[in-house]
Amino acid sequence: MEKTINEQTTAQVITPVQFLEHYQGHRKLTRKLIEAFPEKEFFEHSIGGMRPFAEMVKELLAIAVPGLTEIVSGKTEDFDEHRDYGSTKAGFLKKWDQDTEEIIKLWAQIPLERYQEHIKLFGQYEGTVQSSILYFIDNEIHHRGQGYVYLRSLNIEPPFFYDRN
Amino acid sequence: MEKTINEQTTAQVITPVQFLEHYQGHRKLTRKLIEAFPEKEFFEHSIGGMRPFAEMVKELLAIAVPGLTEIVSGKTEDFDEHRDYGSTKAGFLKKWDQDTEEIIKLWAQIPLERYQEHIKLFGQYEGTVQSSILYFIDNEIHHRGQGYVYLRSLNIEPPFFYDRN
Repeated sequence: MEKTINEQTTAQVITPVQFLEHYQGHRKLTRKLIEAFPEKEFFEHSIGGMRPFAEMVKELLAIAVPGLTEIVSGKTEDFDEHRDYGSTKAGFLKKWDQDTEEIIKLWAQIPLERYQEHIKLFGQYEGTVQSSILYFIDNEIHHRGQGYVYLRSLNIEPPFFYDRN
Repeated sequence: MEKTINEQTTAQVITPVQFLEHYQGHRKLTRKLIEAFPEKEFFEHSIGGMRPFAEMVKELLAIAVPGLTEIVSGKTEDFDEHRDYGSTKAGFLKKWDQDTEEIIKLWAQIPLERYQEHIKLFGQYEGTVQSSILYFIDNEIHHRGQGYVYLRSLNIEPPFFYDRN
């Protein structure tokens, strides 16, 4: 087993840059999932009374940039998962890519010292900065996993779970 | 917004103890999902040709303790997601709880300095200790999200995603 210790910084379980790369890797995979859905089924397909994948993606978009914006600014905003991104996948993908750039800018404004700070997001969700951001990512993985079942039920092969490029 | 900075340690995005609590919180939720399945459907229910939830849980059990054991020992083992835990949910839950205790013991043997170490798990999966453990957790969230769809398709209300106690 190869062993190379990264000694460029004080020992960290995960550095802010690695944490951002981890998040963006997951967002790349979610983007592939949006692409994999047929246009109609992205907005309409459902199992067991659950929301179509487009509605889940609206939730993810309502969390990522708005949540990080609130972490950076400290200004509480209402949570709104019903914003309108149009009726095409292209509209969602455009917003997704804009948010990718925005996340990079916001992340750079969160110093290492803030990750353990206690916050209350959207006026109600309490935790630390790190636990809040982990929740953003976990929630995306959770709903994307549901999207995998939707695709399989449509006889569509989803992207590999480990494909984050 | 309340602000309390944790200054007990060198600033960390996430500490090893918080990382363990994060993992165990997810494992508690997955345990609730296993409990929520009817006995028969746990082993048989499927959508779109996917594996029953029991088979996904076998994968999770094949990753968690075996993966951490390899991280601690440095000894490569083969990956085996087809181990037999019997034909009842009780057998799976017993193993799940044994592994919960084992994970605590193994985690205590991973010093902070090792999280950035490069490793190759099960002889094939390359990454750092932190990215490997994050993958364990992400993979569990992913498959559990699929289990949520299985439960919904069976008209069973799954536990809340944020319930980690």
